[in-house]
Amino acid sequence: MGRHTLEYPKTADNTVRRHNERAIYALETIHRFVNSSQLLNVSFNTPNSPFPVTLPMIGQMGSFDRPSADIGDPLDLYLHGYVSSRMMNVARAAEKEGGDGKEGDEGLPVCIAASRVDALILATSAFNHSYNYRSVVLFGHATLVEDDEEKTYAMELITNGVVPDRWRTSRQPPTKAEMQSTSVLRVKISAGSAKVRDGGVSEDRHDLQNAEAQNSVWTGVLPVFSSIGEPLPTTYNKVEVPANVANFIRDYNKENQEYALAAAKK
Amino acid sequence: MGRHTLEYPKTADNTVRRHNERAIYALETIHRFVNSSQLLNVSFNTPNSPFPVTLPMIGQMGSFDRPSADIGDPLDLYLHGYVSSRMMNVARAAEKEGGDGKEGDEGLPVCIAASRVDALILATSAFNHSYNYRSVVLFGHATLVEDDEEKTYAMELITNGVVPDRWRTSRQPPTKAEMQSTSVLRVKISAGSAKVRDGGVSEDRHDLQNAEAQNSVWTGVLPVFSSIGEPLPTTYNKVEVPANVANFIRDYNKENQEYALAAAKK
Repeated sequence: MGRHTLEYPKTADNTVRRHNERAIYALETIHRFVNSSQLLNVSFNTPNSPFPVTLPMIGQMGSFDRPSADIGDPLDLYLHGYVSSRMMNVARAAEKEGGDGKEGDEGLPVCIAASRVDALILATSAFNHSYNYRSVVLFGHATLVEDDEEKTYAMELITNGVVPDRWRTSRQPPTKAEMQSTSVLRVKISAGSAKVRDGGVSEDRHDLQNAEAQNSVWTGVLPVFSSIGEPLPTTYNKVEVPANVANFIRDYNKENQEYALAAAKK
Repeated sequence: MGRHTLEYPKTADNTVRRHNERAIYALETIHRFVNSSQLLNVSFNTPNSPFPVTLPMIGQMGSFDRPSADIGDPLDLYLHGYVSSRMMNVARAAEKEGGDGKEGDEGLPVCIAASRVDALILATSAFNHSYNYRSVVLFGHATLVEDDEEKTYAMELITNGVVPDRWRTSRQPPTKAEMQSTSVLRVKISAGSAKVRDGGVSEDRHDLQNAEAQNSVWTGVLPVFSSIGEPLPTTYNKVEVPANVANFIRDYNKENQEYALAAAKK
């Protein structure tokens, strides 16, 4: 379409070293995978501990300044999570350090990771077992979203990331209390990469020539995929399952299963 | 059974602050969830970067010194992963720092996280949407396993974690080259916790009394679960799908679906 495919620059943090033929740096691929991941693992450091802390959060890529931006454009990551008080405190502290040119200016350094198993690969040797998988990692600086308009933009983005069009079809508008009690983080992304393994079983030549092994070991691929079951309405629900929910379930089940099977047969 | 249920002590790192009624510290629950997680997110710090790095790895809890240990006993975490050269180098460097009483003695500080979505919870208000989920986090120090016997123990544990009894039923014994080219990390666990959300939709009282909202918004639970499809044998496979593989697929599909449905109805 005459457009360049943007890629994240390779840095010390995001460059894939092992099996680098599996690496992907294209913004579009990475952002799409982040947006289709129901949970993101957000890791950051806290003062006085040598351990990074990882929290599961919900997030979507977006641009408040340019909401019409394409999925392959440079975007921010908006994060929302139940388990966030610790992170919010550290992010708040990181921001307060700002103004003197120190790192705090930029916010809290975070690493966001998501991964999905698409198949178990059972080879003749235990050591050639593998997974088909997709994984992505993003690095960036997180700050709290203070502006109500931007917070609303982010919550709409994130809610529609759970089920398409869910924001508009849920009770509107948000109450003041809801807006006040909700914390959203905006991550300015500085680097990212994805890694994908697909295909079938890879074997050592010796194992293929080992008649005893070939006559006793089952080899093949077990496709793995996530499904959504029949919707379970609340006892007080008065409404038919709406089209956006029904279509979402159908697409989710179809796409996940088809991806796992297509990847296994590559 | 007359046994105490062991719990991880609450430290600054692992204590669940938000929704602490959902927190679990029992070793047994945490270890079982780790063992049933196909991928673990392993985070650590590298020199000269403010960002933690997260890699997806495969792991199982075990005790080389006491292989008969119960799942609820104190255990180590053994990790194996494709994407490991960076981590292996940092772990090696951390060990070399040892001998002078510095932190390097203990190995590389790591945070291990795993999480699973069990349902999407669609409430009247977008702000009361939630997930049923299970998540676990472990903190510990990682060192490279150098001893061949321990490495074999760990690889057997990890392979059987992918498919029960797969180690014994794959080509044996390992070759020297396989043993030499395989790196395994042992993590001495210092803290851990789990967090579980189950049940149905939680609503604000005002939303339940809002007739307009109740007459227009579908509310309910969408159960989410992982499945394994029909096994796809390699072109050269000569063997029927063995019982351990067939049973594993059946149990995997049954347990995942049943858990999601039972959790939604709690």
